[in-house]
Amino acid sequence: MTHTLNRRNFLSKGVLAGVATAAGSTLAAPAIAGELPALRWRLTSGFPNNLDTIYGGAVVMAETLSKITEGKFQIQVFQAGEIVPGPQALDAVNANTVEIAHTCGYYFTGKDPTFAIGSTIPFGMNARQQNAWLYHGGGNEAYNAFLADYGVVGIPGGATGAQMGGWFRNEIKSLADLKGVKMRIAGIAGQVMAKLGVVPQQLPGGDIYPALERGTIDAAEWIGPYDDERLGFYQIAPNYYYPAYWEGGLTVHFFVNKAQYEALPEAYKVALDTACKAANLNMQAMYDVKNTTAIRTLVGKGVKLRPMPRDILDAAYQATFELYGEFEDKHPAWAKIYPQWKKFRDESFQWFRVAEYSYDSYNYAAQAAGK
Amino acid sequence: MTHTLNRRNFLSKGVLAGVATAAGSTLAAPAIAGELPALRWRLTSGFPNNLDTIYGGAVVMAETLSKITEGKFQIQVFQAGEIVPGPQALDAVNANTVEIAHTCGYYFTGKDPTFAIGSTIPFGMNARQQNAWLYHGGGNEAYNAFLADYGVVGIPGGATGAQMGGWFRNEIKSLADLKGVKMRIAGIAGQVMAKLGVVPQQLPGGDIYPALERGTIDAAEWIGPYDDERLGFYQIAPNYYYPAYWEGGLTVHFFVNKAQYEALPEAYKVALDTACKAANLNMQAMYDVKNTTAIRTLVGKGVKLRPMPRDILDAAYQATFELYGEFEDKHPAWAKIYPQWKKFRDESFQWFRVAEYSYDSYNYAAQAAGK
Repeated sequence: MTHTLNRRNFLSKGVLAGVATAAGSTLAAPAIAGELPALRWRLTSGFPNNLDTIYGGAVVMAETLSKITEGKFQIQVFQAGEIVPGPQALDAVNANTVEIAHTCGYYFTGKDPTFAIGSTIPFGMNARQQNAWLYHGGGNEAYNAFLADYGVVGIPGGATGAQMGGWFRNEIKSLADLKGVKMRIAGIAGQVMAKLGVVPQQLPGGDIYPALERGTIDAAEWIGPYDDERLGFYQIAPNYYYPAYWEGGLTVHFFVNKAQYEALPEAYKVALDTACKAANLNMQAMYDVKNTTAIRTLVGKGVKLRPMPRDILDAAYQATFELYGEFEDKHPAWAKIYPQWKKFRDESFQWFRVAEYSYDSYNYAAQAAGK
Repeated sequence: MTHTLNRRNFLSKGVLAGVATAAGSTLAAPAIAGELPALRWRLTSGFPNNLDTIYGGAVVMAETLSKITEGKFQIQVFQAGEIVPGPQALDAVNANTVEIAHTCGYYFTGKDPTFAIGSTIPFGMNARQQNAWLYHGGGNEAYNAFLADYGVVGIPGGATGAQMGGWFRNEIKSLADLKGVKMRIAGIAGQVMAKLGVVPQQLPGGDIYPALERGTIDAAEWIGPYDDERLGFYQIAPNYYYPAYWEGGLTVHFFVNKAQYEALPEAYKVALDTACKAANLNMQAMYDVKNTTAIRTLVGKGVKLRPMPRDILDAAYQATFELYGEFEDKHPAWAKIYPQWKKFRDESFQWFRVAEYSYDSYNYAAQAAGK
């Protein structure tokens, strides 16, 4: 690994001000007047602004970008529905109605299930593995080859970690108890649940609580303890299952209009990429702190934490990989990306089982034993 | 969560060039000539440049920073020993001999064991939990309050994930087999191992292989499959144990001279922080890919992967927390930071056991069962 700086120009110690501070030191060249253009982009978020962590990921990125470009590259963040409805975010970026969106690829599986593979799919990779695949395992390149047909560039920009398996009015003791359950769950996860006898429903976040209250639905999955607590589901459906086998490591993306992205000066392109990468890490760290507090609060409020029954996980696992087989037959884009994804996932699992999982396992067992 | 952009200034669509593209659009203000100073910093790495991933983390950060500032803020990276010996990196930054270092806090436990708590300590947090604590759990603030006495600011800038427990010439079947083993292991981990009967040795990376070959040592821990393979330990000590109970989630830091950091213009400060955060994520993702390949190669070469015996982990766990108790008595800085760290760790473990660990556990068990 080499670096681009030229050693011969740097034999002297750098100086903060434009004057030499020591005899013999070469003076750093004065800064050249910036010729970078002022840019104003509009961003549509896929989330309402009361989901402060996931919506806030775009705000954090935009503020960072503004600061490091001295206000020259500014992105104004709009919540879902403010200028573009959530489900139309991708089309709006493609049409250049807005230059950029912050949302989840899996919201667009109605176009093609391949949209989900860049964000998360059932029994997929965890957060670390997902980043490894995206940044250094060919994931970003493969996903963007697919996204090019939709006129957008995808940049990872947020993560939640493994999510919770949802709130159920009644206790679910085994697979049989899922039959006929009306559950708010969307996309590929909804298709898997349908194979298990669930009646999947698609509802925006704000409609879930009233639907549970009226009995229109019996169960709902959302995100994790922090966001779920705010929506109040525990008051009506106190059985809180773990984990969401369908969201082991969600990546939230920034989707940028491809022509706009490619027209960016190099400095702005790198600033945008870097601010997105930092926002990705930042959201994960923030969720990991907020969820730690929220799970304790929820348990204190009487929520019943319950493991997803084993026979449900087994049936879902089988149904999931059958579904992926169907996708390979029906969707050429899926067939192109899935085999590489699956190989990476499997080999990644093998390595993580060695050091990472054994480390976690020992610590968690020690804690469970009261040490 | 709010953002600083003023909505009224952004009612129009942003334009790439400095001309209005639509009737009625407000023109973005022309870019103001940059008044940011040209800066040249020198960075001393704690690592030799043949450890391309961990040494390369500083290069990645420096290149990013240079690009987003159009070459105005440049950092030249020197490998360990080139201008400053590794163990003196922190003193060199404090003295402003170099403005910045990229190394591990735990290399400086000779000054105070508290240096290790920002990087990793035995039976500490995993990579995700470590980032959660540092960025949003008060960790960066607490660590920097301690570092202020040494004239430096610490910024997380790299991670390895859980490391491997080292290479042993002979199989270690139980705690008794550790008695008298001469092992290359340093810092707090060495102190814990000493309580278990090991004779800890401190050796730089390049001296380990010859020491193993000559029989001066019987065992050595280093990093993980990717780096370990390159140093060739498997040729002499083929028993490869997992995990390193002493390095569950190493954070590598950038240490910046405090006065230099505080004198930075805001744009540079945010650019540096953001490039460091991106470098942190980048190194972890890179290790997670490279280690996945390397563990397969090593097993193919006949390496014997072995779990660290349970009685060793149990004895180490007890010895570790006894040692932390001794630190609380002897080191005021440790006593100040440790209780908050321990509470965060314990609560974080409780949450991660719910969704994250149950998700991993199901997937890994399915893989182990050949599904």
